[in-house]
Amino acid sequence: MSTQPKILELNAFDMRSTAGLDPDTARLVERRRQTFGPTSMLFYKRPLNVVCAEGVWLYEADGNRVLDAYNNVPSIGHCHPAVVAAVSRQIGILNIHTRYLYDGVYTYAERLLATLPPELSNIVFTCTGSESADFALRAARGLTGGTGFIVTANAYHGNTSAVTEVSPSSASAEPRPPHVVVIPAPDTYRWGLEGVSEAFAVNVRSAIDELSSRGIKLAGLMADSIFSSDGVYPGEGGFLKEAVDAVRAAGGLYIADEVQPGFGRTGGHMWGFERHGVIPDIVIMGKPMGNGFPMGGVVIKPDLLADFGARAGYFNTFGGNPVAAAAGLAVLETLQSEGLQQNAHETGHYLRDQIAAVGKVTNQIGDVRGAGLYIGVECVTGDDVKTPNPVLADQLVNAMRERDVLIGTAGINGNILKIRPPLAFRRDHANIFLEAFAASIRSLV
Amino acid sequence: MSTQPKILELNAFDMRSTAGLDPDTARLVERRRQTFGPTSMLFYKRPLNVVCAEGVWLYEADGNRVLDAYNNVPSIGHCHPAVVAAVSRQIGILNIHTRYLYDGVYTYAERLLATLPPELSNIVFTCTGSESADFALRAARGLTGGTGFIVTANAYHGNTSAVTEVSPSSASAEPRPPHVVVIPAPDTYRWGLEGVSEAFAVNVRSAIDELSSRGIKLAGLMADSIFSSDGVYPGEGGFLKEAVDAVRAAGGLYIADEVQPGFGRTGGHMWGFERHGVIPDIVIMGKPMGNGFPMGGVVIKPDLLADFGARAGYFNTFGGNPVAAAAGLAVLETLQSEGLQQNAHETGHYLRDQIAAVGKVTNQIGDVRGAGLYIGVECVTGDDVKTPNPVLADQLVNAMRERDVLIGTAGINGNILKIRPPLAFRRDHANIFLEAFAASIRSLV
Repeated sequence: MSTQPKILELNAFDMRSTAGLDPDTARLVERRRQTFGPTSMLFYKRPLNVVCAEGVWLYEADGNRVLDAYNNVPSIGHCHPAVVAAVSRQIGILNIHTRYLYDGVYTYAERLLATLPPELSNIVFTCTGSESADFALRAARGLTGGTGFIVTANAYHGNTSAVTEVSPSSASAEPRPPHVVVIPAPDTYRWGLEGVSEAFAVNVRSAIDELSSRGIKLAGLMADSIFSSDGVYPGEGGFLKEAVDAVRAAGGLYIADEVQPGFGRTGGHMWGFERHGVIPDIVIMGKPMGNGFPMGGVVIKPDLLADFGARAGYFNTFGGNPVAAAAGLAVLETLQSEGLQQNAHETGHYLRDQIAAVGKVTNQIGDVRGAGLYIGVECVTGDDVKTPNPVLADQLVNAMRERDVLIGTAGINGNILKIRPPLAFRRDHANIFLEAFAASIRSLV
Repeated sequence: MSTQPKILELNAFDMRSTAGLDPDTARLVERRRQTFGPTSMLFYKRPLNVVCAEGVWLYEADGNRVLDAYNNVPSIGHCHPAVVAAVSRQIGILNIHTRYLYDGVYTYAERLLATLPPELSNIVFTCTGSESADFALRAARGLTGGTGFIVTANAYHGNTSAVTEVSPSSASAEPRPPHVVVIPAPDTYRWGLEGVSEAFAVNVRSAIDELSSRGIKLAGLMADSIFSSDGVYPGEGGFLKEAVDAVRAAGGLYIADEVQPGFGRTGGHMWGFERHGVIPDIVIMGKPMGNGFPMGGVVIKPDLLADFGARAGYFNTFGGNPVAAAAGLAVLETLQSEGLQQNAHETGHYLRDQIAAVGKVTNQIGDVRGAGLYIGVECVTGDDVKTPNPVLADQLVNAMRERDVLIGTAGINGNILKIRPPLAFRRDHANIFLEAFAASIRSLV
């Protein structure tokens, strides 16, 4: 790459050299470079050469077993037998678009919608979270007559052209269009927990004014309620409400991106927005919805969908196909039968408490926060002003990888450890994690 | 819907009434309305209530068997055992994103790229054709510094915000942005076959001038070489070259949308652009790639990808996952082992010839054209000026459905029958089709 890689991408293998890799891994890197090109990023200084996975474990070609504390797509566990069985069965029966009637698709839609507030009673199936976010942007524009969007400073909502514009974390080299105004994420570590509701709302109101001064009408606020790529800021439940009220007062919609916090991950609730006592106008779903089977969805108030549908068509070839519906239904049923939301709540608490305890050996672990099994650990230099320490974060991620535990980083400075395992991550897995974390800390600080 | 449905959507069930449907079907319609809302379109005046499918056959709840001459996603046949086996096996082994190394993904990439000209040697995996088209637009903008695109008047390239702008067939109620100029599809029926190359190139040059007069620099021409949603205009092989030369002379890229013509459908070639003796800068893939498993891809010249990758990031969570790769590999192997491209060539010829023969009983079948198993049949009023007859097209589609054969319509006037079966559609299936077609014609003209 001719440009400087972003700090966020420090945790990347350098594709220019395979020095130090075993011959099989080096050969895979070479085949990848030949087909994917040189700018496709692999995680970790020593990339994973994976051959299979099960539950919270990945297995490498050399037989090495790796604990997954990073991946939220295989949310109920890698290769979960319920999803394997559902997909294997359905793909041999019927796999078609939604221009014909098929019972199983409506059964899934009904079951999914039953987990949401009754106001949110319609669904548009898509294939990915990015397509969901893209639809939400388009719908919000059509419905409000506005074009302006407010997002947080290091938000990531997806990869289409339109969604990249509202994803500052991935659009660094592309100029930000005037219809997008970014505001700081609700940095509870630096702002304190108490004033976050008001401070965040003040920033939202300023953004509305800024759009207005540019002659742009507000379409909406798009946010995931855990501010995942910003660095994991769950804050106190309820703090979003004041901001959402301000958005609505200005004629905008609140679009809840549930790709990260949804499907039970935050432990206390099925959906992240429920922590805040607000009902979104549009809800975006993706990643964990099918445990890796590609699927997404937009849940929307029916009057909004009818209004949008009257002025524009939308059809998604793969969205809502019977195999996706079968996978999605297996995920919902397993979340319940295995008590995974409750496990996220309990194991998440335990893991946060213990990480904080381990971190006390140094003043460079500044904050441990999260909700359920979404945890952020902030690396700082240890000075008086909480200066971010992306170098330590990157070292810790790779030290953990060397101890066979996968985590990642987040935040505009890349200094926050992102810990986000499959929800099947139990206390014994947490203990394995904690041992590796303690050893990694000891080796570095 | 409060607005007038488009002529293209004449072939739609009216969701406002379930009168005349059997109780089970009526109940499914009601459940669909409750979950999907009232604007989600079902095909046919009497919608299909499907329970399973195999090969070229769909089965309805009442046991009715329906011949599929419409669906190109299950390209090697509905529920093909090779794809069922590949997906069922792989989803129990590993299903993860491409930030780790995995042999099977590169094997598929290599096999797929081997079917393309050597200049097109890099691939970016996506999840859908829409995501592929969206990436192509973004890449073309970044690479050329231009923003202007040329597309045909009733093109469809996908459903994201950016792609909808270049998909006039689905964007009717949304204003067309100034950076998109539409040109007429190469209407060989009215223009004649001979002058198409020059006429099409003249229109492309005019569009470049038009963009220029608006102060907009050209980014590219996006076209599928069979002009499917425009009404199926394969023309004579080679006619696109003059237009592509004009685009390149103006600094633009040629983006070949292979979602419709690709993967052997046109019979003579694996890829539609090969019929024209041109090598695109970017190739978009989707629908048939995984025979219904959601997957897409962008094949691109490596210098272009390296250039784009240096200025912007792109990552697709589901794109290139091992299960998609397994499905895609099964599709490539089956295309070859079952001789499906050759079958498309032979059965396509036979079907076109016989449709034309059947159509001779009336002057309202104006033209039968196509390549391989992509066939357009133009319904006209029978006057001297080839006036489009969308009413007849709609009646024929529904008359065929009543005779248990599925087809659709295309074209800016909705008067062209779109016949596009799975590639496993053989001569005996063609004969069943032809019997229903002859009877439908007799019943209507």
